[in-house]
Amino acid sequence: MKGLISWFGFKVWRFLERAWEIGVDDPRKVIHCLKLGLALTLISFLYFMRPLYEGFGKNAMWAIMTVVVVYEQTVGATLYKSLNRMIGTSVAGFLAVGVHWVATQSGQKYEPFIVGIFVFILGSAATFSRFIPIVKARFDYGALIFILTFSLVTISGYRVDELLKMAQQRVSTIIIGTSLCTIVIMLVCPVWAGEELHNLIILNMNKLANSLDGCVTLFFNNVDQNNEESQTKLLGYKSVLSSKGNEESMANFARWEPAHGQFNFRHPWEQYLKIGAAIRRCAYCIEALNTCLTSDNHKASQVIKKQVKGSCLRLSSIFSSAVKELGKSIQSMRKPSTVNLFGEMNNAVQELQNDLKSISDSLNLSPPSNPQSLPTLMEIIPLVTFVALLIEIASRVEVISNAVEELGNVAEFKDAESPKKSKQNQNN
Amino acid sequence: MKGLISWFGFKVWRFLERAWEIGVDDPRKVIHCLKLGLALTLISFLYFMRPLYEGFGKNAMWAIMTVVVVYEQTVGATLYKSLNRMIGTSVAGFLAVGVHWVATQSGQKYEPFIVGIFVFILGSAATFSRFIPIVKARFDYGALIFILTFSLVTISGYRVDELLKMAQQRVSTIIIGTSLCTIVIMLVCPVWAGEELHNLIILNMNKLANSLDGCVTLFFNNVDQNNEESQTKLLGYKSVLSSKGNEESMANFARWEPAHGQFNFRHPWEQYLKIGAAIRRCAYCIEALNTCLTSDNHKASQVIKKQVKGSCLRLSSIFSSAVKELGKSIQSMRKPSTVNLFGEMNNAVQELQNDLKSISDSLNLSPPSNPQSLPTLMEIIPLVTFVALLIEIASRVEVISNAVEELGNVAEFKDAESPKKSKQNQNN
Repeated sequence: MKGLISWFGFKVWRFLERAWEIGVDDPRKVIHCLKLGLALTLISFLYFMRPLYEGFGKNAMWAIMTVVVVYEQTVGATLYKSLNRMIGTSVAGFLAVGVHWVATQSGQKYEPFIVGIFVFILGSAATFSRFIPIVKARFDYGALIFILTFSLVTISGYRVDELLKMAQQRVSTIIIGTSLCTIVIMLVCPVWAGEELHNLIILNMNKLANSLDGCVTLFFNNVDQNNEESQTKLLGYKSVLSSKGNEESMANFARWEPAHGQFNFRHPWEQYLKIGAAIRRCAYCIEALNTCLTSDNHKASQVIKKQVKGSCLRLSSIFSSAVKELGKSIQSMRKPSTVNLFGEMNNAVQELQNDLKSISDSLNLSPPSNPQSLPTLMEIIPLVTFVALLIEIASRVEVISNAVEELGNVAEFKDAESPKKSKQNQNN
Repeated sequence: MKGLISWFGFKVWRFLERAWEIGVDDPRKVIHCLKLGLALTLISFLYFMRPLYEGFGKNAMWAIMTVVVVYEQTVGATLYKSLNRMIGTSVAGFLAVGVHWVATQSGQKYEPFIVGIFVFILGSAATFSRFIPIVKARFDYGALIFILTFSLVTISGYRVDELLKMAQQRVSTIIIGTSLCTIVIMLVCPVWAGEELHNLIILNMNKLANSLDGCVTLFFNNVDQNNEESQTKLLGYKSVLSSKGNEESMANFARWEPAHGQFNFRHPWEQYLKIGAAIRRCAYCIEALNTCLTSDNHKASQVIKKQVKGSCLRLSSIFSSAVKELGKSIQSMRKPSTVNLFGEMNNAVQELQNDLKSISDSLNLSPPSNPQSLPTLMEIIPLVTFVALLIEIASRVEVISNAVEELGNVAEFKDAESPKKSKQNQNN
């Protein structure tokens, strides 16, 4: 018995410890929770004030309910749910009153059947509409609320006489709930979906650059793989691989947000998705690049390795500065100043290809008299694969660059500033 | 004006056409919608029957509400939401009655403040718990319902005297709603999350095999790329790349499902996630392989190409039969009979490496007198990359195989049957 209690206590303690770690790791989560507490407390005080209660009667609880279900982490998600809830409720209420009128006209005997048929048809149709991509992306929650309100109002309409008054009260309480929720979420440490998407893309770019850098350095220098920090850097691309869903939902929510910070109301969020996809395509290549590190036949002849090391390291450092530069350009919302970098990149690719050519010549023209000093094709396969993937990455980085440039045009980024100014900007 | 109407009519027509296409494409979606209509109609008839109404009063509408919000596409998701709703409501109701008692003991003046403090603390804590991974995976909806019920009951408790009766009624109506919903979803053409996951993994395996096949054939035969069917096959791996989220949510829901079809209650669904991850790793490689097809420098010398064509095609056909075989083994829930295939695969890899070796020798030992007839290293880089990636895929296919074997052990698959029997089984 004692053992059981101590075991249980230990489990609870572990759970609290985990929770504490999560909180320390990302204090914004804690703020998110406190904000919900605040919104709930505010709405409960509203409820305790007689005037509101007397005006709405039992319907006042719909305001509390609205706060709980509409409250989300980002402003965009909350606005999306708020507007969907209002639109869904209004449209459904309007239709339900009409159906109720038709049903009562047909006499008490047929009423349940007419109501049943309408609930069946409209319920099914609204559910089906949720499968249509554009409805799914923008009005999924609204369709759910439509079904809910429509069924509640038509069915309960059988009993309640003051249908119109009830509908109006319900809409008012929902407006009170959503307004309070929106005010709390927008005024107390707001988290904007658009800004989150913006930062996520920049973060992914930096992760990509670090992974690429780490991978190439490791391949040529054989530095210690077990160093934890370098390992985290190296594997950063993995979180890029799986961030698609997150990006898409952020972009969906960002659409609903008003102008905030550097972003206008109709900021081209879809363009961020294109950039995200380009980054992911680069990450696939890095994944393949990583296998050259870990594959068993990693015995690329040191002689040849030395010949391409210089140009490979240069190329990868140009890549990562280009990607980081693109990230900075998004961050500062200025047109990317990567023209020079891409010239350099092309030069580096050319240089690498020249290196390969000279290796190729040396292989082809080697006198058969002294085959030991030269590596065979078999021995340099991992190296050749590595270099080929690196060259492929060059073209994919250009795709990222084009996508960022397009974003710059559509979102009307300012012109690139001189490097000096840019530094000042960062210090602010 | 006339133009506007015809434009609007055209838009509506297009929308309906799209909807029709979606329905024809996947009739299960239509069935899903009709099932919700059925559940709603049933619950509305229950509502129209006096006894239920008189028993529960206005709380009867909670049954309708429960049906709408708990209804999901798969049995697992519906059960997850149903159980979470019941648990969340019960726990919150129980706690809320306690808090209400404490609040009333302290006198009418302090009551709102005590209620406010409790709502703040428990609301925040429950919201925070949703960030903890295990709670998120299994009790996310329950935590939301907890907050909702707790706030509603504590706050409205200030007015309603019959708190216990109300709580009991609410739980009863929720039980009625969830039972009806569960019955409809389990009896009328049920869609099981577990089965969906099972089929998704098998489908992804087939897509992977087809992509790989198509890619290798295209590389060596230069068949028409614009053929639509072969293009779909070739790009099948793309949907594998982004199926992670889907797999994870299916596995989460499948946990809640009772034994159905071939699956026991505690079928090891997490193992399917491991297989899915292994499939995805293979797909990353195929993505890189595809770049060898489309890269501009696709001029691999035809002489060399012919030398490895045989072994490459053989290897890829072994891959795809191995992957398809693994898929079939999951489908029939028998242990994979791929032992032979892997022997063959290793032989094919060996053969390919021998081919490379002989090419390597011919390059190294070529007399400088006639350099025109032999390709240079530069020319065969895409080919070498292609072959290296193919060999890498061999090791990744083995990872899939190991994961499937582990599934076979954990889920106690039957032993592999003889090929003859297996065919009979398929015909059934």
